[in-house]
Amino acid sequence: MRIVEMHITPIALGDPPLLNAAGLHAPYALRTVVELVTACGLTGLAEVPGSAAVDAVLEESRAVVLGADPRNWHALKGALEGHFKPESSTARGDTPWDQRKIVQVFSALDVACLDIAGKAYGVPVANLLGGIVRERVPYSAYLFYKYEGARQRAALDPEGIVAQAQAMVAEFGFRSIKLKGGVFEPEQEVAALKALRSAFGPEVPIRYDPNALWTVETSIRWGKELESVLEYFEDPARGQAAMAEVRRSVKLPLATNMCTTSFADLPGSVRLGSEDIILTDHHYWGGLHSSMELASFCRSFGLGVSMHSNNHGGISLAAMTHLGAAMPNLSYALDTHYPWQWEEIIVGGRMKIEDGCVTLPQGPGLGVELDRSALERAHQNYLRCGFKERDDEPEMQKKVPGWKFKATRW
Amino acid sequence: MRIVEMHITPIALGDPPLLNAAGLHAPYALRTVVELVTACGLTGLAEVPGSAAVDAVLEESRAVVLGADPRNWHALKGALEGHFKPESSTARGDTPWDQRKIVQVFSALDVACLDIAGKAYGVPVANLLGGIVRERVPYSAYLFYKYEGARQRAALDPEGIVAQAQAMVAEFGFRSIKLKGGVFEPEQEVAALKALRSAFGPEVPIRYDPNALWTVETSIRWGKELESVLEYFEDPARGQAAMAEVRRSVKLPLATNMCTTSFADLPGSVRLGSEDIILTDHHYWGGLHSSMELASFCRSFGLGVSMHSNNHGGISLAAMTHLGAAMPNLSYALDTHYPWQWEEIIVGGRMKIEDGCVTLPQGPGLGVELDRSALERAHQNYLRCGFKERDDEPEMQKKVPGWKFKATRW
Repeated sequence: MRIVEMHITPIALGDPPLLNAAGLHAPYALRTVVELVTACGLTGLAEVPGSAAVDAVLEESRAVVLGADPRNWHALKGALEGHFKPESSTARGDTPWDQRKIVQVFSALDVACLDIAGKAYGVPVANLLGGIVRERVPYSAYLFYKYEGARQRAALDPEGIVAQAQAMVAEFGFRSIKLKGGVFEPEQEVAALKALRSAFGPEVPIRYDPNALWTVETSIRWGKELESVLEYFEDPARGQAAMAEVRRSVKLPLATNMCTTSFADLPGSVRLGSEDIILTDHHYWGGLHSSMELASFCRSFGLGVSMHSNNHGGISLAAMTHLGAAMPNLSYALDTHYPWQWEEIIVGGRMKIEDGCVTLPQGPGLGVELDRSALERAHQNYLRCGFKERDDEPEMQKKVPGWKFKATRW
Repeated sequence: MRIVEMHITPIALGDPPLLNAAGLHAPYALRTVVELVTACGLTGLAEVPGSAAVDAVLEESRAVVLGADPRNWHALKGALEGHFKPESSTARGDTPWDQRKIVQVFSALDVACLDIAGKAYGVPVANLLGGIVRERVPYSAYLFYKYEGARQRAALDPEGIVAQAQAMVAEFGFRSIKLKGGVFEPEQEVAALKALRSAFGPEVPIRYDPNALWTVETSIRWGKELESVLEYFEDPARGQAAMAEVRRSVKLPLATNMCTTSFADLPGSVRLGSEDIILTDHHYWGGLHSSMELASFCRSFGLGVSMHSNNHGGISLAAMTHLGAAMPNLSYALDTHYPWQWEEIIVGGRMKIEDGCVTLPQGPGLGVELDRSALERAHQNYLRCGFKERDDEPEMQKKVPGWKFKATRW
């Protein structure tokens, strides 16, 4: 079985004005859709965070991908590693591809190859990741501070956050809640978390992520306040050493998708003890196979596994759900931005979230198909909107002149 | 797809009088063949080290296995973990199943389920482990001190070992050599290794395994002698702490299948730095999926991967070859006892080793089928020979009266 076509389509999906540590979401979230086609007519889909830089690496990978057998992922990955290794790039005078872009390319190709293999074998992708351990995969309600705009009201204080949570839980049935923080000073965000706790009670777990904007001291000071409030505390401070220091002083499980983000970071994680829970994200860990490998590492070293999310569409939601269906030691509901989007590029439109869960798509492979006219509309949006990468800082400056990102703010 | 039949067949295969740290091989090597059959008529095979104790755990697993979907390995494994967990066993007043037996049961079922899945999907098992990275899998010539008896002459001194190596390399084309040691005093075994080096030159890597019979001091003393002789030094001393101590003093890669033998041992391996290379063996690491997880761990932590072997037949050789074909970071030729056996229970008889390699079987699944009459003969041998587990000590006592196994001998 050989891959004979590779299509790379950047798209833009409408996005509300969500606030976060990096600034403000632009009116469009960028994604890139990758489509592989085999000589025998099977198609594999994947979706990765969109940027002109990643699109360029995808384009560069085409020569290696065409002709490869999609059922032999590790062979294709090995060929790509050879192609992109720093020495050979330098020798060819090419772009010095950085590892953060390459893992996204690995992710796109791994997912698309699995989609093809599942279709070839007549089984869901989850069967090819060790098998299905659950059919209904739980997600959490992902709350954001936000300005007035698309999807729900403004939410800029504890009352707004509680109202947002109530609306999201009512619509989708989520059983756990995450607040994206790092927007306001710690006191205000901690007040919002306490308000959520009062509103929902202890049976709804709450997680909180100030995106590493806090010092170790701030993290410990406010972490102690949150010990009886949170399920887990995600990336309060920056880097493994700082996280380890916070972890020694605060009686809360610490989670990360910022200080331990690749296989190369695992030895440091073990040495320093930087977290209790690693958030996988198949887009940043190199695909679904790699995410299963991470889960195995977490099991051996007594760590929990949860899942990080960026804005995404249905192809990624399907891939995340297959991973969640296959991962034996998935300890927590998965994060997803999906409720914040309203457009879709797959046949059938928006996927359903019911009782806080996405049911594993039943078709072979990922179980989703491209809606060609919706894809074309989303691609035209990409061309029209002019964004080439995600950059929340200039968006924020439109609201707050002179606003600057700070790696450590409080 | 549901499993509706499970057959457990203990067999005995003729074995030569091979010497090792535990004593002497009996005239028969025991294996257990496991066969799963689905309602749709697909059959999955596996083979594990034979013992009445493991057969009993396999028998106990039957209630969980029947009705399971062989394409959902992690779900079946989870159900077995629940069934065999110490508390529930105690509550039921059952045998307190130890983890070493349970991983062999996991191995048998994982392999048989993969064989079924491969047949259902029409692809080799290696495709279901991340894909094929090599079609020809290299094995090493596995040398033993031996008495006169089946297969080749006696080999009890350096000349005998060199002659054995030359005969084995001539017949199978092996490009690397392993000597099983722990039989004679270190000086004599080191002399045999130096004789091998003189006879084959530096282009044929040599590995050596005294099976942890040496003290740390002996390991360092003779390890230094071997620095220019060996590819790697396997389990000179017993336990992670002793291995770490040897490793700090000897400039040779240290390998193990004795001090780091399960996922629970990995944190200790990292903390102490006990070895450079972990020898997987799908029979003892819980199957092929688990062995791939171990390989991923080794890649992240900068360790090499090689493969351990016991006596085995063609079903295991096929499974080992699929694993070797799929493992991207297989750093060394695999160990195999296969050349020491002469009987076979698969259709077509003995598998071929050419140029030191086994070519990946091409059929779907494992690519091997049971020869029913050969299986029956091997089962009758089992019933007739009276052995219920491997025990090399009484065999050795027939040759050397009063011989006793010692955990540390030199």
